[in-house]
Amino acid sequence: MGNEEQQLKALGEGAAKYRVIGTRPIRPDGVDKVTGRANFGADIQLADMIFGRVVRSPHAHARIKSINTAKAAALPGVKAVVTAADFPELGPGDIAAGEVVVSFHDMSLNVIARRKALYDGHAIAAVAATSAEIAAQAMALIEVEYELLPPVMTAAAAMAPNATLLHEGLITKGVTPAPAQSNVAARTEFKLGDLEQGFAEADVIVEHEFTTQTVHQGYIEPHACVASIGADGMATVWCSSQGQFMVRAYVAKLCGMEISKVKVLPAEIGGGFGGKTVIYLEPLAVALAKKSGRPVKMVMTRDEVLRATGPTSGGHARARIGAKRDGTITAGDLEMEYEAGAFPGSPVMLGCMTGLAPYNIKNIRVVGYDVVVNRPKAAAYRAPGAPIAAFAVECALDALANKLGMDPLELRLKNAAKEGTQAPYGPKFPRIGFEETLLAAKAHPHYSAPLGPNQGRGLASGFWFNIGGNSSASVALNEDGTVIVVTGNPDIGGSRASMAMMTAEVLEIDVARVKPLVADTESVPYSDLTGGSRVTFATGKAVVEAAQDVVRQLKERAAKMWEIDPDQVEWKDGHAVAIETDKYKPLSIADIARKAGKTGGPISGKANINAQGAGAGFGTHICDVEVDPETGHVTVLRYTAIQDVGTAIHPAYVEGQLQGGAVQGIGWALNEEYVYDKLGRLQNTGFLDYRMPVASDLPMIDTVLVEVPNPGHPYGVRGVGEVPIVPPLATVANAVSAAIGIRMTDLPMSPPRLLAAITAAKQK
Amino acid sequence: MGNEEQQLKALGEGAAKYRVIGTRPIRPDGVDKVTGRANFGADIQLADMIFGRVVRSPHAHARIKSINTAKAAALPGVKAVVTAADFPELGPGDIAAGEVVVSFHDMSLNVIARRKALYDGHAIAAVAATSAEIAAQAMALIEVEYELLPPVMTAAAAMAPNATLLHEGLITKGVTPAPAQSNVAARTEFKLGDLEQGFAEADVIVEHEFTTQTVHQGYIEPHACVASIGADGMATVWCSSQGQFMVRAYVAKLCGMEISKVKVLPAEIGGGFGGKTVIYLEPLAVALAKKSGRPVKMVMTRDEVLRATGPTSGGHARARIGAKRDGTITAGDLEMEYEAGAFPGSPVMLGCMTGLAPYNIKNIRVVGYDVVVNRPKAAAYRAPGAPIAAFAVECALDALANKLGMDPLELRLKNAAKEGTQAPYGPKFPRIGFEETLLAAKAHPHYSAPLGPNQGRGLASGFWFNIGGNSSASVALNEDGTVIVVTGNPDIGGSRASMAMMTAEVLEIDVARVKPLVADTESVPYSDLTGGSRVTFATGKAVVEAAQDVVRQLKERAAKMWEIDPDQVEWKDGHAVAIETDKYKPLSIADIARKAGKTGGPISGKANINAQGAGAGFGTHICDVEVDPETGHVTVLRYTAIQDVGTAIHPAYVEGQLQGGAVQGIGWALNEEYVYDKLGRLQNTGFLDYRMPVASDLPMIDTVLVEVPNPGHPYGVRGVGEVPIVPPLATVANAVSAAIGIRMTDLPMSPPRLLAAITAAKQK
Repeated sequence: MGNEEQQLKALGEGAAKYRVIGTRPIRPDGVDKVTGRANFGADIQLADMIFGRVVRSPHAHARIKSINTAKAAALPGVKAVVTAADFPELGPGDIAAGEVVVSFHDMSLNVIARRKALYDGHAIAAVAATSAEIAAQAMALIEVEYELLPPVMTAAAAMAPNATLLHEGLITKGVTPAPAQSNVAARTEFKLGDLEQGFAEADVIVEHEFTTQTVHQGYIEPHACVASIGADGMATVWCSSQGQFMVRAYVAKLCGMEISKVKVLPAEIGGGFGGKTVIYLEPLAVALAKKSGRPVKMVMTRDEVLRATGPTSGGHARARIGAKRDGTITAGDLEMEYEAGAFPGSPVMLGCMTGLAPYNIKNIRVVGYDVVVNRPKAAAYRAPGAPIAAFAVECALDALANKLGMDPLELRLKNAAKEGTQAPYGPKFPRIGFEETLLAAKAHPHYSAPLGPNQGRGLASGFWFNIGGNSSASVALNEDGTVIVVTGNPDIGGSRASMAMMTAEVLEIDVARVKPLVADTESVPYSDLTGGSRVTFATGKAVVEAAQDVVRQLKERAAKMWEIDPDQVEWKDGHAVAIETDKYKPLSIADIARKAGKTGGPISGKANINAQGAGAGFGTHICDVEVDPETGHVTVLRYTAIQDVGTAIHPAYVEGQLQGGAVQGIGWALNEEYVYDKLGRLQNTGFLDYRMPVASDLPMIDTVLVEVPNPGHPYGVRGVGEVPIVPPLATVANAVSAAIGIRMTDLPMSPPRLLAAITAAKQK
Repeated sequence: MGNEEQQLKALGEGAAKYRVIGTRPIRPDGVDKVTGRANFGADIQLADMIFGRVVRSPHAHARIKSINTAKAAALPGVKAVVTAADFPELGPGDIAAGEVVVSFHDMSLNVIARRKALYDGHAIAAVAATSAEIAAQAMALIEVEYELLPPVMTAAAAMAPNATLLHEGLITKGVTPAPAQSNVAARTEFKLGDLEQGFAEADVIVEHEFTTQTVHQGYIEPHACVASIGADGMATVWCSSQGQFMVRAYVAKLCGMEISKVKVLPAEIGGGFGGKTVIYLEPLAVALAKKSGRPVKMVMTRDEVLRATGPTSGGHARARIGAKRDGTITAGDLEMEYEAGAFPGSPVMLGCMTGLAPYNIKNIRVVGYDVVVNRPKAAAYRAPGAPIAAFAVECALDALANKLGMDPLELRLKNAAKEGTQAPYGPKFPRIGFEETLLAAKAHPHYSAPLGPNQGRGLASGFWFNIGGNSSASVALNEDGTVIVVTGNPDIGGSRASMAMMTAEVLEIDVARVKPLVADTESVPYSDLTGGSRVTFATGKAVVEAAQDVVRQLKERAAKMWEIDPDQVEWKDGHAVAIETDKYKPLSIADIARKAGKTGGPISGKANINAQGAGAGFGTHICDVEVDPETGHVTVLRYTAIQDVGTAIHPAYVEGQLQGGAVQGIGWALNEEYVYDKLGRLQNTGFLDYRMPVASDLPMIDTVLVEVPNPGHPYGVRGVGEVPIVPPLATVANAVSAAIGIRMTDLPMSPPRLLAAITAAKQK
């Protein structure tokens, strides 16, 4: 798999340096997953459990005049019906505590509509019955009186003068003086240097407009949960999410409960990609459970997932870039509008921060607009906002290279950000590995392989911050010397493996002796959710600290057993060893654990941190395509994803992240989009019509792991999961543009659109 | 409830001293239990779960010549059958690691018979099928060929010359030179002073023999568990027990697994009283799950509980006590045989240690014999061993007081152990409260209330060590300032309440803001089981340390927020307060928790300790009975249990412990016994025939809480749960003896036995 020779070369240093890190042990969660034993959100069974369903708006935009639930409630087998009236109404000031992303206020209105339905599929009511079938019958009996309003489906329509307003009273943030109410929730602007001066210095300027469509994360597992609540008001929620503490915070707030009254148990997660950093069903299930006195299970259909859960924004961008004849970029101007869906909060600011970040450009202006439209509220999707901006910038750079007659890779090399470069969003970069990815691409046989007719090669790069944040970890010894490492982050990309490996690395033992656990909200202290590519870095840092705490105790206990000073003990090859004497036989963890009661009690270490020092990540992708001029169908012939991954703890998982990100980006580039009818009703609500790439659509994705250790982590970890979705949109577009000789600027480059472009070009 | 005035008096000091301790908040587990939401061992449901049953020996003593499981395995619906052959055979050297009580070797043979069936009900095979009904059918198809051996049902029979041996090769421990093999597993002896000299100094000597019968703990919830195991060998066990780590250790060893491969989730426990400090079903369920690939549920019937789970020993004792005319006891000689059941390990040593412990006697000899018989293996039962010894000693003291013409209370007061008294088993007592219980009894109106015809009053005292041991705890803050306290001990007597209360006491907050959790074996570091009255003391000590760790951090974080030195911050009334300045507004836990991310990360404290300094407990009980001379029926008219409880954290739970212990002791004294037929088959295998006292049999049990703080605990906690079962046997016997004028020495004092004694006395 991948280009092994290059990988091994890149890995060389790491592999030699570490005992466990860089190896590829069997995945701790693998067997349970492939044998069907792993419990996902819908797998929980409780005695007396009933089944909840959600009544959803069939209208994209409507005032809710009345809801009559009486007939549904009277249906035999129906145990509870809830509407927004069953939840506390939160004020606009109810912003989120801690590190959750969406304000409590907006989340509450998205979870169940109050006064207005804002998109096709918006939850209006929920019903729980003794079977899913009865619940479905009851749904049909709930009478909702709507007053229809004109649907506002695109950013352009939403920003048009006299556009119908989604939210009365919405005032654009970031504009002084504050304008009148509109559908623009916020305007963001970053500036560096003097833009006019920059363009004046340019010999060549390119300017293009780009559009991308709403796309969904496409996780296999639909949202699912089970909620139970006692007569004392103590609620327990099992669900699949990217953060049990995130779910707890939202459920508590939306249901009007103290946090300690809500316990959330994380199920396995069948894909999240950012889409499970928010919630949909859990407060409904809790409210239904409360009303019925029975545990309630809720599972979305695929139709509901596509209609009502957060995709990422559709976007529009105008990119203008100027450069000197030698390729030095002198100015970059980027203006973008992102569709936030029904509530404010598109990732446009993150797009603004990342688009030009890979390059050392002295004069920059980036402007972004967060625009509400009658679509489902956007949720995070892998490097949220960055792919859209990178699509614009990296395609524009491709055009610039063409115009300069320069190799697009050389253009990037000439302008690549490096240690000390001022990032457009503020900080100066510490040690980063962008240049290294470009050099690896240049050296890769893929970049110089011959191409045939109707074939084209594209190259693009991408950037993502990767974040740190709050993480808690504990490392406890069992009586037989085996080890349990507990963290509070759902394992969405192999974190159980990486936590076990880092623990084993610190303790210097076989990783098979370490069992990793993702704990519920009461069994581990608070942790921010799994997102931002933060877990291997931040939670890993906590795990390393907790394991070091254990080593310190192990040395102390050995010293106690030997009756010598703890300073006279060192930790070596998984054993306590007395320094400068062979009087004492080295003690293994098992030796010390067995006697722990006699030397002071059980042994465990813990760390609770807000991890600083996350390492920025950069990737460079190469793609070869062949376009069928008769049909417009694109075949991806070859694809290589190169990325600075810091240190690859478990390289197979890291390769998987690079491959998965690339594939999702290819789908975004070529086929995925939301198809709405004129009334704003989603038409492609299943995986047959919402066309994601499947294995047979693609070649094996080659990966090259470049390892430039992050100085902010004891083992050099950078986040790896998000960077790989940033370059593909432009990589594929540049390849397609090269293959057909037409600059493609609108996604998806599906056969009809491509055929139309080819036909139009021929007719010119 | 109870004698409120006296309680309040006794509580006076405590109640004033503490903020939360000594109050009676609503029980954290109460609502779930009374509304049926609490999950007990049998309440777990898993997808695809099948049902296991155990084939048990119908013979008390037999060699197993062959087991044929083929027909059972072939029955449609049967998914697995296991016998001892499916488990690793453990050697005699496989003693238990850590703090579990029964050796792995004996436990393995008790869980499933190998070569020999040693009691009626001994497990021979287990079968799992898609329904409990099919499993029952399959049980009948398992063919076992037995070679019958003579059953050995009592200690006397087992110790008789030429008695049939239960275990070939069993050599009596504690005897030099080692004798030939026998049914006596061990001989224990304690000596103090010069016994002959002591008796020579005595003016009065009493000597009596006593017998007690096998009695069961009588917990309402039968043993129940669910086990699931993955293809990777990772097992999960849900069960009701007194220690999830105990279950984990036994399951791992008996099934030949690493400890980290077994996860045990503690269910609620519907009574344990010591009987759930060992296991029966769990390894069978794991083996059946492994063989079938399906989760397996096993639930005992009441019949199985009585036939095959550990009761406490039947005992025989000879007590000889000498005293001077003024009541000074000069010598005590106690010799006892306890029936261990089918494997060594009766609590005779604990009987030897406790029987004479309440008294300051210079010359003592105590000898005990641990004798195997063809009865179910004895398990711990509340103050194991102590009630039997106390029955002998306290009845003998009653006889001694009669002979001396002295009030039995005054006799005890004269000889009561106090701070500095040498305990017969070794240590000198630190501050204890035995005398205080006697003085409270003397002052209690009950002790001087008038009695009617056929009525009698008894008084007796009792002692229990109370232990410490290994405990782990963590205290974590939620974002809203609510608190979660996690420990690893099943809550059998209110420990969730006491852990929450001690946490609230340290943090100086409302106890309703603290949520206590009993965690699974992976979510909290190792803890010894719930037993020995150790949890409120030892785990409580860990909780106090963990909470103090949190307070330290809270002060640090506040200092960080104020940018002052942590030494300049004190913790006061649940707030961080800057010392000697009113420049800063005091910060609540919520204020600090909300900003925890900004000041360094989540806040939690932990402690793992092997707690030292457990405080010995003493109780004195008073009982009035009326005996119907026509039927021999005893009516308990009034019962007062007085005990030094150290500090009562939650007095209502403490009162409950005193009441429950007294009631169990009353049952032991009056009615409970195992009735075997001549072949050694148990005849009374249900609660209709095994007669425990029910509410209508008894008056309200009055309690007096004497609070002499234990200097070994920050809040003065002593264990309280076991002491109250020690005095009742003798208390009731002394009352009955007084009522009928005949010294009763054999339990139970059931109507037939009592009537026989009355009739025999009349005929004399």
